[in-house]
Amino acid sequence: MFDSITPQPNARSGSGGAFWAVIPAGGAGTRLWPLSRATRPKFLLPLFGNRSLLQQTFDRLLPLADADHILVVCGPAHAAAIARQLPDLPAANIVVEPSPNGTGPALALATALIARDDPRAIVGSFAADHDVTDRDAFAAAVRTAIAVARKGELVTVGLTPTRPETGYGYIERTDQIVLTSGHGTAYRAARFIEKPDRAHAEQYLEAGTFLWNAAMFAWRVDALLGELERQQPELLAGVRRIADAWDRPQREIVTTSVWPTLPNVTIDIGVMEGARALAVIPAEMGWSDVGDWNGLGELIEQDGLGNSVRGDLLRIDTTNSVIWSETGRMVAMVGLDNIIVVDTEDALLIIDRGKSQDVRKVVDQLKATMRGELS
Amino acid sequence: MFDSITPQPNARSGSGGAFWAVIPAGGAGTRLWPLSRATRPKFLLPLFGNRSLLQQTFDRLLPLADADHILVVCGPAHAAAIARQLPDLPAANIVVEPSPNGTGPALALATALIARDDPRAIVGSFAADHDVTDRDAFAAAVRTAIAVARKGELVTVGLTPTRPETGYGYIERTDQIVLTSGHGTAYRAARFIEKPDRAHAEQYLEAGTFLWNAAMFAWRVDALLGELERQQPELLAGVRRIADAWDRPQREIVTTSVWPTLPNVTIDIGVMEGARALAVIPAEMGWSDVGDWNGLGELIEQDGLGNSVRGDLLRIDTTNSVIWSETGRMVAMVGLDNIIVVDTEDALLIIDRGKSQDVRKVVDQLKATMRGELS
Repeated sequence: MFDSITPQPNARSGSGGAFWAVIPAGGAGTRLWPLSRATRPKFLLPLFGNRSLLQQTFDRLLPLADADHILVVCGPAHAAAIARQLPDLPAANIVVEPSPNGTGPALALATALIARDDPRAIVGSFAADHDVTDRDAFAAAVRTAIAVARKGELVTVGLTPTRPETGYGYIERTDQIVLTSGHGTAYRAARFIEKPDRAHAEQYLEAGTFLWNAAMFAWRVDALLGELERQQPELLAGVRRIADAWDRPQREIVTTSVWPTLPNVTIDIGVMEGARALAVIPAEMGWSDVGDWNGLGELIEQDGLGNSVRGDLLRIDTTNSVIWSETGRMVAMVGLDNIIVVDTEDALLIIDRGKSQDVRKVVDQLKATMRGELS
Repeated sequence: MFDSITPQPNARSGSGGAFWAVIPAGGAGTRLWPLSRATRPKFLLPLFGNRSLLQQTFDRLLPLADADHILVVCGPAHAAAIARQLPDLPAANIVVEPSPNGTGPALALATALIARDDPRAIVGSFAADHDVTDRDAFAAAVRTAIAVARKGELVTVGLTPTRPETGYGYIERTDQIVLTSGHGTAYRAARFIEKPDRAHAEQYLEAGTFLWNAAMFAWRVDALLGELERQQPELLAGVRRIADAWDRPQREIVTTSVWPTLPNVTIDIGVMEGARALAVIPAEMGWSDVGDWNGLGELIEQDGLGNSVRGDLLRIDTTNSVIWSETGRMVAMVGLDNIIVVDTEDALLIIDRGKSQDVRKVVDQLKATMRGELS
């Protein structure tokens, strides 16, 4: 596995260490049930075109990192499917975490593994299940993030808000950071803000100094490990033990015993928020977290009446609805507004569009009633 | 076929001719699409329990008429399915009309066929696709209708309204008709009224002298033929030509040439409305025409929140809805009120419950867009 990688001087490393892209692929994407399932998480689904969100994330990174410098961190249930979807990714670059433990341990472990060979490497982290329509803008923003990370800053790429969204966290920026000409624009990041209420979201939009937190980060490995030592010493000690054992026969026994003892923290709150030097790169790249059916509806083409349709729809007096059919059956809708219909082989969801977050309740109820096979 | 019947003196004939029950089985029941289809009309569907509406109609008539005194009039496409569903019905008692032509020609032909052997027979007509929950009340009302029909009256059974329904026609009754004790209650019928607006429907309900027209009729065959001679001489001449040829090799050639020339009228408007002696029997028998999904929802059991459910429903914040699934798939509904969902193997309908009549528009559109296979 990972131990078989012999990092080559990366052609794209520029000055200093090579750039490594890490893709944490946890999370089932519960709010896209019944399309997403525990066994078929959102990142494995081809929501747009023929390639899954994970494959598109991988494709998006190839101009920035060779395939052998991309790591995917995932749960045991998904390693095989990921290997199939990404045939160009070396098998050893699929890092399996024994159990879900938040992005903190996943990214700390990936960073510690990379650090063994290249303590000056730059690591970028990119969610496996987000959508980006402007790949050039993405690449430009990441290159700026890499340039700033080389200085030892922890860096986040923040998206310029286009609406007073209450479903995302925000990052407040302050002073601009002076960069070499041609490297883009960066700011000091003042704070991370959890999902706000509507009034605050409108205020942030108007202020112009707040950016959406897309969980898109970059750091030099020694900088992150330094922050871990200061803020999360237990986490660092744990991932170091695992990283030390990674190339040895004890890997499995050490990993399975240490992993569950690590603090379950996200990288945002556990490390970035308290970092001494935190920068943010503002970007516009047609980004979405494809969080729920309402959001997905906005990303796919619409008819003249606000309906987003994948499948065979016969529509009478129906507006502003989302129809997603996987079955090939005809869907007839009459006299409806703002309704989401998701039609799969074994489950059918119909939900008011304003309640699209409540899909979680369906999955919770399926689990609670021992119908986990559908969750 | 019918020519092989040798009518026996019917044990149930009482004084005068035997009682024959005719079941016109036309009409696809378009408003129950996608459950009903052109090839799978409403009367063939087992909507309640294991037996189809047609089978239940047949069962309901057996206390009144032997199986060989029951005729079903249907289109060519449905004869075989009817024969399968009613194994006790003699094959010759399935009268196939070459094309749909309204209830007038269908019932005139059935009456003319019965009249050949028994000009004093009593004929009752009963829709193939209605629901009746109180079979004893049904039988009692029909017995009263038969008794009145024996006097030479044209008779209709009218249902006591339970709500100001705008989806049904009404019959206004006037003076009571004196019957021998134990024969029930009958009135003179003043007029047939087409589906009224809400204000009129409320007025009819309050007046107490208006009954729902359930297209449930009885007559002595000579009385109907006499009214046809007076009001519909062309229709009578045509069905007589067909009836005369029925037992001969020319049956098919005569039927297919004459049938399309017959006036397309309903028995209500074409004959009953203008009859010289028209009676109405008021009845309460838990009757419904099962006209659309809204009505069907009212007929099946409901949960405590007004939802009528056939199938596997996971319900969150969902009220007053109708869920009918034929597929075994789980249906999850979230945050909905007053929605109808009908899930079949090849088509899915979702419609606002207040628009349930508009299902017709779906079927019209399917036909118009050359997708008749789904209509």
